[in-house]
Amino acid sequence: MADKKLWGGRFTGGTDALVEAYTESVSFDRHLWAEDIAGSKAHARMLARQGVIPAEDAQAIVAGLEAVQAEIEQGEFSWRTDREDVHMNIEARLTELIGDAGKRLHTGRSRNDQVALDFRLHVSRRLALWGELVARLVGVLCERAEEHADTLLPGHTHMQPAQPVSLGHHLLAYAQMLRRDHERITDCLVRVRVSPLGAAALAGTTYPLDPASVAEDVGFPATFRNSMDAVCDRDFAAEALFCGSLIMAHLSRLCEEIIIWANPAFGFVRLPDGYATGSSIMPQKKNPDVAEIMRGKTGRVYGSLIGLLTTLKGLPLTYNRDLQEDKEPFFDTDKTVRLSLDCMSGMLAEMAFVPEAMRAALGRGFLNATELADYLVGKGVPFREAHHVTGRAVAWCEKHGKRLEDLSLEELRGFSELIGEDVFQILAYESAVARRTIPGGTAPVRVREQLAEMLEWLARAMPA
Amino acid sequence: MADKKLWGGRFTGGTDALVEAYTESVSFDRHLWAEDIAGSKAHARMLARQGVIPAEDAQAIVAGLEAVQAEIEQGEFSWRTDREDVHMNIEARLTELIGDAGKRLHTGRSRNDQVALDFRLHVSRRLALWGELVARLVGVLCERAEEHADTLLPGHTHMQPAQPVSLGHHLLAYAQMLRRDHERITDCLVRVRVSPLGAAALAGTTYPLDPASVAEDVGFPATFRNSMDAVCDRDFAAEALFCGSLIMAHLSRLCEEIIIWANPAFGFVRLPDGYATGSSIMPQKKNPDVAEIMRGKTGRVYGSLIGLLTTLKGLPLTYNRDLQEDKEPFFDTDKTVRLSLDCMSGMLAEMAFVPEAMRAALGRGFLNATELADYLVGKGVPFREAHHVTGRAVAWCEKHGKRLEDLSLEELRGFSELIGEDVFQILAYESAVARRTIPGGTAPVRVREQLAEMLEWLARAMPA
Amino acid sequence: MADKKLWGGRFTGGTDALVEAYTESVSFDRHLWAEDIAGSKAHARMLARQGVIPAEDAQAIVAGLEAVQAEIEQGEFSWRTDREDVHMNIEARLTELIGDAGKRLHTGRSRNDQVALDFRLHVSRRLALWGELVARLVGVLCERAEEHADTLLPGHTHMQPAQPVSLGHHLLAYAQMLRRDHERITDCLVRVRVSPLGAAALAGTTYPLDPASVAEDVGFPATFRNSMDAVCDRDFAAEALFCGSLIMAHLSRLCEEIIIWANPAFGFVRLPDGYATGSSIMPQKKNPDVAEIMRGKTGRVYGSLIGLLTTLKGLPLTYNRDLQEDKEPFFDTDKTVRLSLDCMSGMLAEMAFVPEAMRAALGRGFLNATELADYLVGKGVPFREAHHVTGRAVAWCEKHGKRLEDLSLEELRGFSELIGEDVFQILAYESAVARRTIPGGTAPVRVREQLAEMLEWLARAMPA
Amino acid sequence: MADKKLWGGRFTGGTDALVEAYTESVSFDRHLWAEDIAGSKAHARMLARQGVIPAEDAQAIVAGLEAVQAEIEQGEFSWRTDREDVHMNIEARLTELIGDAGKRLHTGRSRNDQVALDFRLHVSRRLALWGELVARLVGVLCERAEEHADTLLPGHTHMQPAQPVSLGHHLLAYAQMLRRDHERITDCLVRVRVSPLGAAALAGTTYPLDPASVAEDVGFPATFRNSMDAVCDRDFAAEALFCGSLIMAHLSRLCEEIIIWANPAFGFVRLPDGYATGSSIMPQKKNPDVAEIMRGKTGRVYGSLIGLLTTLKGLPLTYNRDLQEDKEPFFDTDKTVRLSLDCMSGMLAEMAFVPEAMRAALGRGFLNATELADYLVGKGVPFREAHHVTGRAVAWCEKHGKRLEDLSLEELRGFSELIGEDVFQILAYESAVARRTIPGGTAPVRVREQLAEMLEWLARAMPA
Repeated sequence: MADKKLWGGRFTGGTDALVEAYTESVSFDRHLWAEDIAGSKAHARMLARQGVIPAEDAQAIVAGLEAVQAEIEQGEFSWRTDREDVHMNIEARLTELIGDAGKRLHTGRSRNDQVALDFRLHVSRRLALWGELVARLVGVLCERAEEHADTLLPGHTHMQPAQPVSLGHHLLAYAQMLRRDHERITDCLVRVRVSPLGAAALAGTTYPLDPASVAEDVGFPATFRNSMDAVCDRDFAAEALFCGSLIMAHLSRLCEEIIIWANPAFGFVRLPDGYATGSSIMPQKKNPDVAEIMRGKTGRVYGSLIGLLTTLKGLPLTYNRDLQEDKEPFFDTDKTVRLSLDCMSGMLAEMAFVPEAMRAALGRGFLNATELADYLVGKGVPFREAHHVTGRAVAWCEKHGKRLEDLSLEELRGFSELIGEDVFQILAYESAVARRTIPGGTAPVRVREQLAEMLEWLARAMPA
Repeated sequence: MADKKLWGGRFTGGTDALVEAYTESVSFDRHLWAEDIAGSKAHARMLARQGVIPAEDAQAIVAGLEAVQAEIEQGEFSWRTDREDVHMNIEARLTELIGDAGKRLHTGRSRNDQVALDFRLHVSRRLALWGELVARLVGVLCERAEEHADTLLPGHTHMQPAQPVSLGHHLLAYAQMLRRDHERITDCLVRVRVSPLGAAALAGTTYPLDPASVAEDVGFPATFRNSMDAVCDRDFAAEALFCGSLIMAHLSRLCEEIIIWANPAFGFVRLPDGYATGSSIMPQKKNPDVAEIMRGKTGRVYGSLIGLLTTLKGLPLTYNRDLQEDKEPFFDTDKTVRLSLDCMSGMLAEMAFVPEAMRAALGRGFLNATELADYLVGKGVPFREAHHVTGRAVAWCEKHGKRLEDLSLEELRGFSELIGEDVFQILAYESAVARRTIPGGTAPVRVREQLAEMLEWLARAMPA
Repeated sequence: MADKKLWGGRFTGGTDALVEAYTESVSFDRHLWAEDIAGSKAHARMLARQGVIPAEDAQAIVAGLEAVQAEIEQGEFSWRTDREDVHMNIEARLTELIGDAGKRLHTGRSRNDQVALDFRLHVSRRLALWGELVARLVGVLCERAEEHADTLLPGHTHMQPAQPVSLGHHLLAYAQMLRRDHERITDCLVRVRVSPLGAAALAGTTYPLDPASVAEDVGFPATFRNSMDAVCDRDFAAEALFCGSLIMAHLSRLCEEIIIWANPAFGFVRLPDGYATGSSIMPQKKNPDVAEIMRGKTGRVYGSLIGLLTTLKGLPLTYNRDLQEDKEPFFDTDKTVRLSLDCMSGMLAEMAFVPEAMRAALGRGFLNATELADYLVGKGVPFREAHHVTGRAVAWCEKHGKRLEDLSLEELRGFSELIGEDVFQILAYESAVARRTIPGGTAPVRVREQLAEMLEWLARAMPA
Repeated sequence: MADKKLWGGRFTGGTDALVEAYTESVSFDRHLWAEDIAGSKAHARMLARQGVIPAEDAQAIVAGLEAVQAEIEQGEFSWRTDREDVHMNIEARLTELIGDAGKRLHTGRSRNDQVALDFRLHVSRRLALWGELVARLVGVLCERAEEHADTLLPGHTHMQPAQPVSLGHHLLAYAQMLRRDHERITDCLVRVRVSPLGAAALAGTTYPLDPASVAEDVGFPATFRNSMDAVCDRDFAAEALFCGSLIMAHLSRLCEEIIIWANPAFGFVRLPDGYATGSSIMPQKKNPDVAEIMRGKTGRVYGSLIGLLTTLKGLPLTYNRDLQEDKEPFFDTDKTVRLSLDCMSGMLAEMAFVPEAMRAALGRGFLNATELADYLVGKGVPFREAHHVTGRAVAWCEKHGKRLEDLSLEELRGFSELIGEDVFQILAYESAVARRTIPGGTAPVRVREQLAEMLEWLARAMPA
């Protein structure tokens, strides 16, 4: 080999240590230990059923794997980087424990189909958990929506006050988003729960295995249809990361609102103490740290999604070692999504809404101007004229620091003779909201209907 | 206003032109014209059914919209940027054509729910088309797989020859990927086909509209459940872009293989003339341009996905003008996905596979070494010993430029006395493939089974 | 070829039209026409200088290219898709105009180095323009900062009022961000302005060309060092997209503030009419559409960056047709960045700040609490005690709806006997700001210093 | 608080543990310990110089911080999650060690400017290291290029053999890419090395600090110009991630080539044992795992870049807790980039190139066809005719399984009478390469010139 002086000396710690540090996966894929053991037990039992290994061997393997499991659970297992990955660590320990039978476990199997099964089992379990946490958050939203079906606040478009809405309706908008997330998770799970075991390295095995019974043993309803696809398909992981990305997009929207609402200019919410931090200097300060971090973590999950998609781009068939990069983005996203959903549930459950501040904001935004114009149209005033009149009334109020509902009947009649006593009922924000009774609208009666339907769905979606 | 000299003069073309250029959308959202007209016709008919506008008005509107449609189809419609968007262009023209009745079309509707409906209709139609094109490509893959179920080539892992596989099996691996794409499209469509009309600006309308009948009229099975969610939900577009991203990931993998296979070192394929470009200088050169461009366009679709996700991050309720940025990424992705699928179908249908080159590669890679070792194990040789013997035979062949199957029985017995005449049947690549009969394996009998199942699915998936 | 029935019929419009639609670039790379002509003129002159073509030919070519330029500028040039790209369109037209001499233009050149030069020239020109527009926006910020050096508003951390700051200081924070953008553009330009002409297809040419003189002719200070790198380097485009991404990140931050400040709860700004849209229904409503669209377009530019990076991943040397995907992301980003910078300059120049609303927010946030505590420390009160006292005073004020500065000396002394008449000077927000005189701090004297330094930089950065 | 039953039970481990797990940063920001201590020592010394704290206190603080450093280096420091972050952990321990003087360390400082300084110091150190590792890899490339300046292989465009090139030239193309990476790192460092200390929470401090002397103490040439910008600027981190992204893009291209070249169809390289893995089954198999993982990790780094950019989008001034998400993407990228550069240096240094395989590929691709045509042009044959003749010769060779150089003079003259004995010198690949003497071309004389210039640069770029 060439004289090293030219490029300045030795590599960090020698080739072996360097390459081991670069290629090892046990530091992260050990998270798959439970799934690796579950998959191996299913494989061993099937091998025995098919007569590929003796029944005693399968029993020894299953018992040995349970012993390994106990060691791991009790923190007594010693993970070794020189054994590369979770599979080799467990298999080597198994063989230490039970001898030669342990070596027969890998019959008819390759690490390619083994890791694919382990990862699918793991993603399956975690997505199921995401589904539960999403449902729980929907539950919290429903609860707060029920409490505040009649509380009014300004609905915004373009971050400008537009029309009064029910706070319950506003909260249920997020429940609808999350319900779609739940549906996407359910759809994704169908593609996750496909057992690849039996695909071996890439071409299938010559042993008379029974993939379907392994799938059944691990609780998967389907098996692979093409061995080459089976060992290199990571679409399910990308799809899971996409599900996580939209969940975070939804949470980031809610966080943005909470952060703005917690500013004293709005004051729509008071953050629960456990979800905010104070300042040693300013006693009135309460920082919405949890909401900020959650909004910030959205980028991290998007990054994991695009990272995996980039890794998949242009890979020829079949297994390529690039695919080792599939796990960390999922593990990281899983942690982020679970903690985020949990924190949002807790924060929302304990957050105080401040109806008075919301009501004050209604007047500030002339949110009943539309109603006045519609009232005049109802009295026979042509559309353009009605809006012109309303415009003048609003301009007058702005100038005099009043709200429309503060005007006397006489003052109002100064803008149009057709205005009568019944106008005050119209100017009430409650009535503006109550009149929007289209299905899915903000009228409290519709909000309660929406809530009931959501709770029905929730009852079906929540685990027993 | 401040003295402009400090920062160097006037803005480009004045505020009006600048802001119009920045905010207009008619240059791209005109792609929605057909959906805008379809949605408006449904809205007008419903308004009449509900008694909100006279039946004559609805008839005039529908007829007028059909006249507008004819103008657009015949290229006689004049799109005006000062009319901002597709909706205003069509409505203004309608009113020119039919007078005041045209103004009543917008009753109980806002541009917020209108554009949401138009966009959902458009995405729905395009996703359905993607599904057809995916199915067609699966059909081409099936056809070529049937033709080549018995053609063998080296299956690769780590881009190294690993085990011989059926070319049909290899091609069906892509069919499996695309079938999942089709399933994802189908799942996504359920969330796309939800009519938002009636949500109005954000809170629902006070008119007695019937959202369900509008949905039915445009062919959507569902309506919005929450008006605030309805006007700002763009999840469906992000999900469509994700479907497109995985389709492109799959195509990029196939392109990578085609590009490598077209290099003379492999020579596994001869590109159809229509899908390659030559060189005026080197007569033998045939560049796989279509496959390269397709691989390159993968980045573009990923970019659109991450772009929209970024736009959605942290948006407070409800409609924000940021959402105008939802359409161009979808339009661009739609064009890319459709043309890519179509080009891949055409290229694959016409591509010549070169079985002789594939067979030559089998020998070069000692792809029957595994079989020899297994043969020895079958003769009672311990596993380690069997592999050791095989290793020596391979090393000898490498040194002498031979393949294992080129050795005489005598030469083979030089490595192990247990080798008999039957070894030649074992060393045949066909037999290595034929023995992998596990369901989903590469044995031709399994490939044909897989193909039959895929064709059944295709018959269900293809439009009548 | 196979029976087409299986996969359902013919391709869209036949192979030729399909592939042409997929691979053509003239629909977008025609944007490079000016650079293509400039590069070709430089090439022709050099060919003549080097004696590769006769001087008369070079003269004819230059004159012919100027005629083509005139046709394009006058809209009389007919772009033909069957001539694939901008280069072939111009060269073919040149040859129509001047005959055989036109064919000699391409001597010693390949489309690979030609397109690389054109694209580099284009990116160079556009980045220079970005630099000007960034500088202009910095100029507007300086102007408004000068105007408002003494205007106070609450400085926020965690979107909570923290300490009073100068509005001029706040605006100059954005000027600092943009100045870094300008520096990055300058750095990037060094890597853009490297002429690749002479690299030919990939290996260099056998003609005795003089790359350095071509570079000089087009105004580039450097030439390629390695022909293989020269034809496939697109790092400069990715770097330009990154520059654009950070510009948009900065603009999106300012947009977010403008959007929030325009909400009546804050009311810190009144949007200029040209940069907002109204509502036909609510006369008081003014939507910050320009700021929203700009914030939304951030995602689009990020998407272009990640799209190009993804396209570049894993490409073997040298030119691959994937690289055709380099131009559209840059063209799109260029348009977005230029219009965004221009719109922000115009919007900021005309935006009205509302100092009274800012002042009202100062009191609401107890932004002088820190000052009171520091005052007590100055009087000898231990740190913890001082903050405890302040905390009690704030709590009392909150309960009674007062601001600290509203309290009488007597009331204040109820919290600590050490408080004297001089406290009122301390409680004044102006004094809190004025005391922060650390270099880079918010004291108006420092803000004016910062402004002066920025204007000096601007004088150097702005084009003469 | 609300009845929990509706949404199914308790939160994971109670609010405190949940929120702590979500918001703590000590598990990762402890990587900043060395920089935190360096920054604090500089701050303490400055405080004493400015007379803000007594000199004895500063001495005690510096000594105490050194004691803390020793504890950390010896693994005796106990990191506590309840102390949130690296800053609190170190400060609290300092105070345990030295008492009240420790509390004075934080005078005039906030965690906002403290963490910004720590992170800038860290990024600065790591980028400097990246620069060294990039330079070292350039050194290895130069070394191998020198060795193989005269080795020829097919240069590819479109992954098709195009023209013969020098392997040294090919390798130096990568050196050029990496040299640009080095330049970008150098540019970025100017923006990283700006001290933010003194900006305090956001507005600057009232203490008479001297930011410039702190900057000098930590080795930074510049200080912040605007306190609000200083506490929330993370552009430098995004720029560092972009530098890392392009480094990985370049490495991924080289990895792709190594992976393809290691396939037996090419056989251009033999991987060093330490950088490949074997198979227990196929003795001839050598998987390029290191190159595959490196290619795969490109996605991960891109993901970190887009993640941080997304986090920054739309953040109002000044510090928001979202910014806590800046560190992990950089730490992860730093590890990936450093190990990748190191592994690539090692792999390239030890990789065996196989010139015979490269030479065999030259003939297979008719890479001297261009030369034959040029030869005929030199003999006076019109261009088109020359290429037609060459085309026929190539076609004949393909049919008869020969290379052009295998033909006899007589056979060649069958295609054109003008061909003479001198043609064989022309058909030699060496001569095709040697004729490309344009600066930057592939002629060995130019490759050596390029190499010399690169080594000069390297001598300047490598640390003494």
